[in-house]
Amino acid sequence: MLELSISTPTREALVDITALVEEAVVAAIPQEKGEVFRGLVHIYVPHTTAAVTVNEGADPAVARDITDTFARLVPYDGGYRHREGNADAHVKATLVGSHTAVPLEGGHLKLGTWQSVYFAEFDGPRRRRIWLDLVASALDERTA
Amino acid sequence: MLELSISTPTREALVDITALVEEAVVAAIPQEKGEVFRGLVHIYVPHTTAAVTVNEGADPAVARDITDTFARLVPYDGGYRHREGNADAHVKATLVGSHTAVPLEGGHLKLGTWQSVYFAEFDGPRRRRIWLDLVASALDERTA
Amino acid sequence: MLELSISTPTREALVDITALVEEAVVAAIPQEKGEVFRGLVHIYVPHTTAAVTVNEGADPAVARDITDTFARLVPYDGGYRHREGNADAHVKATLVGSHTAVPLEGGHLKLGTWQSVYFAEFDGPRRRRIWLDLVASALDERTA
Repeated sequence: MLELSISTPTREALVDITALVEEAVVAAIPQEKGEVFRGLVHIYVPHTTAAVTVNEGADPAVARDITDTFARLVPYDGGYRHREGNADAHVKATLVGSHTAVPLEGGHLKLGTWQSVYFAEFDGPRRRRIWLDLVASALDERTA
Repeated sequence: MLELSISTPTREALVDITALVEEAVVAAIPQEKGEVFRGLVHIYVPHTTAAVTVNEGADPAVARDITDTFARLVPYDGGYRHREGNADAHVKATLVGSHTAVPLEGGHLKLGTWQSVYFAEFDGPRRRRIWLDLVASALDERTA
Repeated sequence: MLELSISTPTREALVDITALVEEAVVAAIPQEKGEVFRGLVHIYVPHTTAAVTVNEGADPAVARDITDTFARLVPYDGGYRHREGNADAHVKATLVGSHTAVPLEGGHLKLGTWQSVYFAEFDGPRRRRIWLDLVASALDERTA
C-alpha cells in the first residue's frame, strides 16, 4: 500500500489529487514493467468525514457546485444526534464513498477526457491521508 | 481493458447494460479458462455527467424512480456556477459513482437475483463509452 | 467467493459487519500466507434494497444520522412508480452503492482509525447475504 498525505484548505472542498496519484503510481511501478502494466489503481480514504470521487477537472465551478449542493441537501445544522458538529460530513462521506478505482495503462492513469480524481473534504481544513494500491488486470493480452 | 459503446435515449435514463457486459466478459475470457475463472469485472465510466450503478432490473419503474428522485434532489435549474447547463448531471455523477465491480464465477457475471447493471445517463442523449477490466480472485481454491 | 449471512433488525439500519468480514478474511487466507498477504477485500451486496458503506463505528449516533437523513431526502411515501412499498429503498441503494473494497495487510482488514464497515439495510428486517472476494496487490515488495 502507498500512502499520500494532503492538506485540505477549507471545511468543504474538492481537492484535485490526480497529479499526486499519477506520481505515486509511476514511482511504484518498477520501470521495466511500466510499459506493460495494465490494471487499476485503488484509491481509499481512511477517514469518516471525507471521501473520494471522479468528476470534471476543467472548470473549478463544478467542484463548487458539488460541495454547495451537498451542503443544501445535508445541512451543517440539521439537528443530528452525533454531537461533534460534523454529522453532516459523515452523511456526505457515505453519499460519495470512501473508495474508487481508476484504470491504468502503460503504467499511467487512464482517465476520461474531462476526468480528475478528487479528494472530497467535508470537515476540514485538516491533514488527510489517502491509501493507494495497484491491482493487475487478468485480461489476456490477446483480448485486451 | 475492454471498451463498450452505447447510445443513451434521453437526457436522463438508466440503461440496462447487463447483457452487454456479460457478452464482453465471456468473449474476453479464453475458453479454456472460462470454467475456472473467478474474480471481478470492474466497470468504469470515463465521463463526468454519467455513472454506473447496480439495481433492480425486473420492474422498469425502479429505474424511473431513481432518475425522478435524483431530478428532485438535484434540479436541472438549480442556480449552479458551472454554465454549461449540465451542472446537475455532474453532481448526480458523484452521487452515483463512476465505477462499480461485480463478481464473476465460471466466466460469467454473478449478480443477485434481482440485480442488473445500469449505465446512468444524466446529460444525454449521447454516445457513451464504458471501460471494463477483469481482476482475478486471490481466494484459495480450498477456501472459496 | 465467500458468503456471509446476516439478519437485519429493522426496516432501516446500518449494521456493523466489520468483525464478520475480518473473521471471514482471516479464515480464507491460508495461514502460511497470512503474514505476507497484501491486497483488498471486495465486499458486494447482492440485493437491490440494501447497500454497503464505510463510516464511523465509535458513536452509534452517526449510523442513525445517516439513515435519518436518507429517510428525509428519499421519503418512504414519495409517490413512486414502483408499487412494492420499497421504491425509496431502491433509490437509497444506488445512493450508497452495492460494493466497496477495504485494504488488507498481513491478512487483516486495514481500516482508518474510526472506520467500520456497515451493511446498509433500507427494506428490512430481512435475512441478507454479503459476498466477499480477495484481490492481491500488484505492488512490488520494494515499493510498498
